[in-house]
Amino acid sequence: MRRFVIVGQRACASADFRLDDLPGTSGRLDVLVRCLRAALLVSHGVRQDAIVYLVLGGGVPAKRVVRVEGAAARFLRPDERSLATLVKKSLAAEAEGESERFVEVRPGIAVRRGGLELVLADLGDAVLVLLEPAGADVRSEPALDAAHVAFFVGDHSGFDDVERRWLIDLGARAVAVGPVQLHAEDAVTIVSNEMDRREASNSRRAR
Amino acid sequence: MRRFVIVGQRACASADFRLDDLPGTSGRLDVLVRCLRAALLVSHGVRQDAIVYLVLGGGVPAKRVVRVEGAAARFLRPDERSLATLVKKSLAAEAEGESERFVEVRPGIAVRRGGLELVLADLGDAVLVLLEPAGADVRSEPALDAAHVAFFVGDHSGFDDVERRWLIDLGARAVAVGPVQLHAEDAVTIVSNEMDRREASNSRRAR
Repeated sequence: MRRFVIVGQRACASADFRLDDLPGTSGRLDVLVRCLRAALLVSHGVRQDAIVYLVLGGGVPAKRVVRVEGAAARFLRPDERSLATLVKKSLAAEAEGESERFVEVRPGIAVRRGGLELVLADLGDAVLVLLEPAGADVRSEPALDAAHVAFFVGDHSGFDDVERRWLIDLGARAVAVGPVQLHAEDAVTIVSNEMDRREASNSRRAR
Repeated sequence: MRRFVIVGQRACASADFRLDDLPGTSGRLDVLVRCLRAALLVSHGVRQDAIVYLVLGGGVPAKRVVRVEGAAARFLRPDERSLATLVKKSLAAEAEGESERFVEVRPGIAVRRGGLELVLADLGDAVLVLLEPAGADVRSEPALDAAHVAFFVGDHSGFDDVERRWLIDLGARAVAVGPVQLHAEDAVTIVSNEMDRREASNSRRAR
């Protein structure tokens, strides 16, 4: 299982943003939904072994997390507006409850109150990987051989120092995707490709 | 120099599409603008050594090509709506001329009449690479060592047989990005990462 925890420092934790100006009104939710596409969608299909957490840090009064499970979610479309519409409807559906646990608002999609620190309980025994430019090269990183990996991905403004320190103290490995600093969604694409390659190589070896 | 020729079989070659329903009204221009982002934009910057051609095959009466040069284009934003707006304005600006050569409609952005076959003259001495699932693995592909590479990328419906044959007959190498069939924009991200790695490795070696 692959999990992607996408951290939006200021991403809007309510449905109060405009679909026709995502970058300007949503705290850059556009970055997060592009990461969602890269993590879950492949050509004519959805990755069944991937789960994405969108950590929406721009919450007044509370931060929220939207969880999307590839195996259960339905009608995921790849374009930004469709994905942002999905997030908007999910947040609106859970606007009153503001639950302290994940509440499923439609198949495969759940919302809970809280920030990054509260996602951890949902990650099980996953090996933690922090994607950042100064990390070890993903192609030679042993952490990606684990059966369960959780990748932490910052949006355009990255992680704040406290979050980063907290993740490293939890044992997260700092991993980089290459020599050029890329958009968050490209980092998701590249680590997914690396995981695909290792899984294909392992299944060839097992035959 | 890296060039990406993104072929949209039915992508709208005029400005007659709606920004609030790109997938439904533009012949899937959403796929093409996501490829444009992946090819040109990096974290807080634009790739100076990349040029993208959007081949818009859904032209009535004529197909058109939009060329975007990373080194000259200004104010490129990463979200789909902004990029689609840019394409729409560029097509509207060149709506009457319908020139047989590239006409610059704003800095770094040019439009011409014609389809895939007419892009070739613009590619210079680039080594041609056709991205497709059955190709050789990109990580061991010598074509990517060339100083000038032009990648041909199909949209969600791929290449038609005639176009594919034509490219192969021209000497294009068929290259795959990994064991899982991905969206076009992810293929662009992965080959860009491979090129970044080889360039970084070459410049280390040259020191």
